[in-house]
Amino acid sequence: MIRLNASDAGFSRAFTDLVNARREADEDVARDVTAMIARVRTEGDAAVKELTQRFDRFDLDTQGWKLDRADCLAAWEGLQPELRDALELAAERIAIYHSKQKPEDRDEIDSAGVRLGARWRAVDAAGVYVPGGRAAYPSSVLMNALPARAAGVGRLVMVTPTPNGEVNPLVLAAAHLAGVDEIWRIGGAQAIAALAYGTETIEPVDVITGPGNAWVAEAKRQLYGVVGIDMVAGPSEIVVVADGENDADWIAADLLSQAEHDPTSQSILFTDDAGFADKVAEAVERALAQLATEKTARASWDANGAIIVVPDLVAAMPLVDRLAPEHLELACDNAEGLFEMVRHAGSVFIGRYTPEAVGDYVAGPNHVLPTGRRARFASGLSVLDFMKRTSFLSLDEAGLAAIGPAAVALARAEGLPAHAESVAIRLRSK
Amino acid sequence: MIRLNASDAGFSRAFTDLVNARREADEDVARDVTAMIARVRTEGDAAVKELTQRFDRFDLDTQGWKLDRADCLAAWEGLQPELRDALELAAERIAIYHSKQKPEDRDEIDSAGVRLGARWRAVDAAGVYVPGGRAAYPSSVLMNALPARAAGVGRLVMVTPTPNGEVNPLVLAAAHLAGVDEIWRIGGAQAIAALAYGTETIEPVDVITGPGNAWVAEAKRQLYGVVGIDMVAGPSEIVVVADGENDADWIAADLLSQAEHDPTSQSILFTDDAGFADKVAEAVERALAQLATEKTARASWDANGAIIVVPDLVAAMPLVDRLAPEHLELACDNAEGLFEMVRHAGSVFIGRYTPEAVGDYVAGPNHVLPTGRRARFASGLSVLDFMKRTSFLSLDEAGLAAIGPAAVALARAEGLPAHAESVAIRLRSK
Repeated sequence: MIRLNASDAGFSRAFTDLVNARREADEDVARDVTAMIARVRTEGDAAVKELTQRFDRFDLDTQGWKLDRADCLAAWEGLQPELRDALELAAERIAIYHSKQKPEDRDEIDSAGVRLGARWRAVDAAGVYVPGGRAAYPSSVLMNALPARAAGVGRLVMVTPTPNGEVNPLVLAAAHLAGVDEIWRIGGAQAIAALAYGTETIEPVDVITGPGNAWVAEAKRQLYGVVGIDMVAGPSEIVVVADGENDADWIAADLLSQAEHDPTSQSILFTDDAGFADKVAEAVERALAQLATEKTARASWDANGAIIVVPDLVAAMPLVDRLAPEHLELACDNAEGLFEMVRHAGSVFIGRYTPEAVGDYVAGPNHVLPTGRRARFASGLSVLDFMKRTSFLSLDEAGLAAIGPAAVALARAEGLPAHAESVAIRLRSK
Repeated sequence: MIRLNASDAGFSRAFTDLVNARREADEDVARDVTAMIARVRTEGDAAVKELTQRFDRFDLDTQGWKLDRADCLAAWEGLQPELRDALELAAERIAIYHSKQKPEDRDEIDSAGVRLGARWRAVDAAGVYVPGGRAAYPSSVLMNALPARAAGVGRLVMVTPTPNGEVNPLVLAAAHLAGVDEIWRIGGAQAIAALAYGTETIEPVDVITGPGNAWVAEAKRQLYGVVGIDMVAGPSEIVVVADGENDADWIAADLLSQAEHDPTSQSILFTDDAGFADKVAEAVERALAQLATEKTARASWDANGAIIVVPDLVAAMPLVDRLAPEHLELACDNAEGLFEMVRHAGSVFIGRYTPEAVGDYVAGPNHVLPTGRRARFASGLSVLDFMKRTSFLSLDEAGLAAIGPAAVALARAEGLPAHAESVAIRLRSK
């Protein structure tokens, strides 16, 4: 963890270094992934089977390619009632929030008598990647599958690796709740390639979303354009802006909730109270000592954590915009006022009773958010990622007479005579 | 050009081949582009200057890096009045259409007393790539710059190569009209890299849009995630669905308006009238013989053109969806009814008086559209490409008491105790 003070002489340089620090592991997986995609594209099922045997150590043909609805229902019914209730509350709130994201169609006639508009439709099929093993999160199933459902996607496919053939029941229960149509027991770059190109057994999809390791992320990047993808995701991060009136233990808990994700995660506190900064630093140490995920959280906090003292919280806001954080907590009296100043953040958590983790699970907005300063230009996952817009235009003879001549003039100026003629031939018919 | 008949025995196979035919040149530019991006990133201005000298054969330092507002104004004033009027009509209509795309913010309080919503903001800076030479289109300047303006982008940058130092006055005039803030005389992968990472002279941007050659497209693909980009663009295409009541010369003109773009462009006619199909084939030959762009258009028509006879036009619509064309013209009596059936198309042109070219210039909707079957999952360029959404959440003590326990349960089930504790510590305070 580094401590910075915005009033210090070297602050500008030190903060710029913090902004530009790369936390993403430079795993050189591009060439491996290119080869794996090419194999799946040409060899289909055989390649998927062989790569699954190699990486997940089980045989798809003998243990089964698919998990079916009965498996999901059984997993759901096997859950503790408390967890079922929690998942149901989460699913309901996520579904409601995302259903309101559905865009409206446009269909209007303008002053020139030209009819024009745009119509939104869901993609035919979407694939959701769900990691296996340690990071197999039912919340991730809901956050990816429910926006697709809200969009009206006809065929919702899940892929998830089952290392050594072991299935994660929480993930299956969430798939049951989300109404996933197909589940394939495959993972890695081979699963992304199978979804993008299809195989003998697996029909291709149009959009692929969901988190994954470096191989999965690179496969999505390489196949962007063959299919739609959600985003290039990097390590998670949180920025907390807090005054000295907070309980230091609460703020420490918030910082650690991000740090426990991964050693590359980042937690940053801005405060206008140097004494409070000390208290939070101590509280983090106390909390770490009691945390089951201490090893990961400590690695993240030590390498990437930061506490920055600013003269006042308003002065923190331009610095926050430069970080463009995935998550931003505003735990202070004037949280609303500070929120108005924010330009770049994936999601903002306003007030002392809004810990970021409540947004990870049950609040409703999506937890798939732009990382690594991408909130400058990117948005969280939404219904729009599973829909596309078709614009349309309808002119009658009078409408074409009104605006057609300008099109003819521009087409000729651009050296495109067939463009010009396709309009001019209709204008001459009058 | 191939002729197919949907009633023939081999049609299914032949049509699938047509759908899957790859028209994109497999230029192996990835490695070159990777190296150029790395050079610009590390060497900045020096690399941009050297690459511009090599590819565009002029010296940025002596001839100037920038074109300024006075250059644009002079180009504007030097235009023929007819062209000025045409550009003004186009700009006005494009601006109005795109201004209505601005999304609405959400801010609501739900039944649990939880405040939640989403807020849209423009990106700080956008860069528009405008090709030099033959494909330097003022319409492209308007179609890329005006949506950024409508979004409220603060800094709108244009890059355009000026081979041998020669500037295209039409492009500058359009930049004047669109209110571009900066114009840099650079192109190729080096221009994309300079916009993405910035150099000593050029500040970086957040989003890059605009068409370009294979190097430009690959640079955008590689830098996707560092900046936002519009889309991976491929060769242009049109599908025309026409009954026998059309003038064959009109339909031929429409097919050629796409074919004249590039030898890789594609024009396809579906008709339910075999006699009309013959007439169009003849009309295309007649029109080609008189076309200044004959060479390109003929190469495209010969290699990629198709005329497909279907038993009735309704039967064509599922085939059109499989092609998911960039442009779709419906020139028939029941155009509205067929339009209702369309699931996948970039833009649809309804009725006999709506040639696609009118949409390229003056209608209002964007002419940057998904190609190569990407309309299955992608949309045309819009204001949304220059904006991003920040979700937000605000809970009070009662709201957290209502939904917090479910978050605690799920976080524990996922093995994330610090997530659970950040909520539980606040619940315990009551």
